[in-house]
Amino acid sequence: MTGNGQALITERTTVRRLPARGDHRWSVIHAVLDEALVAHVGLVHDGSPVVIPMAFARVGERLYLHGSPASRLLRTMRGGAEVCVTVTLIDGLVLARSAFHHSVNYRSVVVYGAPVEVTDPDEKGAALAALVERARPGRSAETRPPNRKELAGTLVVSVGLEEASAKIRTGPPIDDEEDYALDVWAGEIPLRLTAGVPVPDPRLAPGILLPGRTSGRT
Amino acid sequence: MTGNGQALITERTTVRRLPARGDHRWSVIHAVLDEALVAHVGLVHDGSPVVIPMAFARVGERLYLHGSPASRLLRTMRGGAEVCVTVTLIDGLVLARSAFHHSVNYRSVVVYGAPVEVTDPDEKGAALAALVERARPGRSAETRPPNRKELAGTLVVSVGLEEASAKIRTGPPIDDEEDYALDVWAGEIPLRLTAGVPVPDPRLAPGILLPGRTSGRT
Repeated sequence: MTGNGQALITERTTVRRLPARGDHRWSVIHAVLDEALVAHVGLVHDGSPVVIPMAFARVGERLYLHGSPASRLLRTMRGGAEVCVTVTLIDGLVLARSAFHHSVNYRSVVVYGAPVEVTDPDEKGAALAALVERARPGRSAETRPPNRKELAGTLVVSVGLEEASAKIRTGPPIDDEEDYALDVWAGEIPLRLTAGVPVPDPRLAPGILLPGRTSGRT
Repeated sequence: MTGNGQALITERTTVRRLPARGDHRWSVIHAVLDEALVAHVGLVHDGSPVVIPMAFARVGERLYLHGSPASRLLRTMRGGAEVCVTVTLIDGLVLARSAFHHSVNYRSVVVYGAPVEVTDPDEKGAALAALVERARPGRSAETRPPNRKELAGTLVVSVGLEEASAKIRTGPPIDDEEDYALDVWAGEIPLRLTAGVPVPDPRLAPGILLPGRTSGRT
């Protein structure tokens, strides 16, 4: 942390394309990370780029990723390989009067760092609880906690948020001035990841409800 | 294309972790690509991994990406750098009785390839039209097409789908047998990217409707 409420502005976290969309404030970076459910984690493996979708959680100024100790990519990360973790929320389609000015409204965060394996039991437990909390707040207290075998069978790594930036586009299209006279609809079609009706496990015993709900199916 | 309805199964498109979730059929790969709006494109830049969210479109067995010729990453791609393009659709949260077996239902596609710049005017025009069609079907015919200056100001690259794989998780949690007796709700909370009410550009002239709609605001 730099102590002034924002991440470090380094060579690679400087937003070059459309810099007005860039933001380095922790508050903005945290908000994007805490809303997104999946991160795209990039690393170099045998000289080639690899990008994998992963669940993740933020605790303070660190991101936590987890998986099987048998995962080649997690082992590469544990070995100190640098990663780029990118998180994107899609907020809307931007329809302009010209094909050229079509766009997408989004909020994204890019984090550069070198993952470290989490070996401290308390930190590992907190990270795994935070990962379960992403499913729904309070969930980690509702479920059977990980046992010793499961803890040993889960590799957790963390990446610091020191070198991070957010990039955000909002609002209507920006058309060329002469195109505003065209007889073409323009604006934004908002998009949002929305939850449907919970589907109980076919093996769920009758009468067990999702806390806060009054029926097993709705 | 391999001619038998699926992508090549190479060393790196072999799904190693939970191989039952892997799929190499074109039909499956295409369906995921055609539903997703944003791809996460990974490449190696100055020795480090970089992952950026980009709009994209599929035409036949190729993916098309576009941007400013001034973009450092697009210039790196044009220079023949290898990329990994990953596309992920989030379908639901999987709540298990144990913390350990929580999961996410998803459909993802990973494509490895070396982008080539699209210079043929017909192919470039078709790619840009396909990109605009992602906003909504028929959109490219509704809007002012790109002029010569805009075409020159847009760099389009394509990546072949030869080396691609899909990975999909569906269905309820898989708990340990003894945990099925626990008094804990388990199942799936479906998630879906849904469109809201279109928001007209504040500068939209009165009476211009989005085709297929009968009111400017709904």
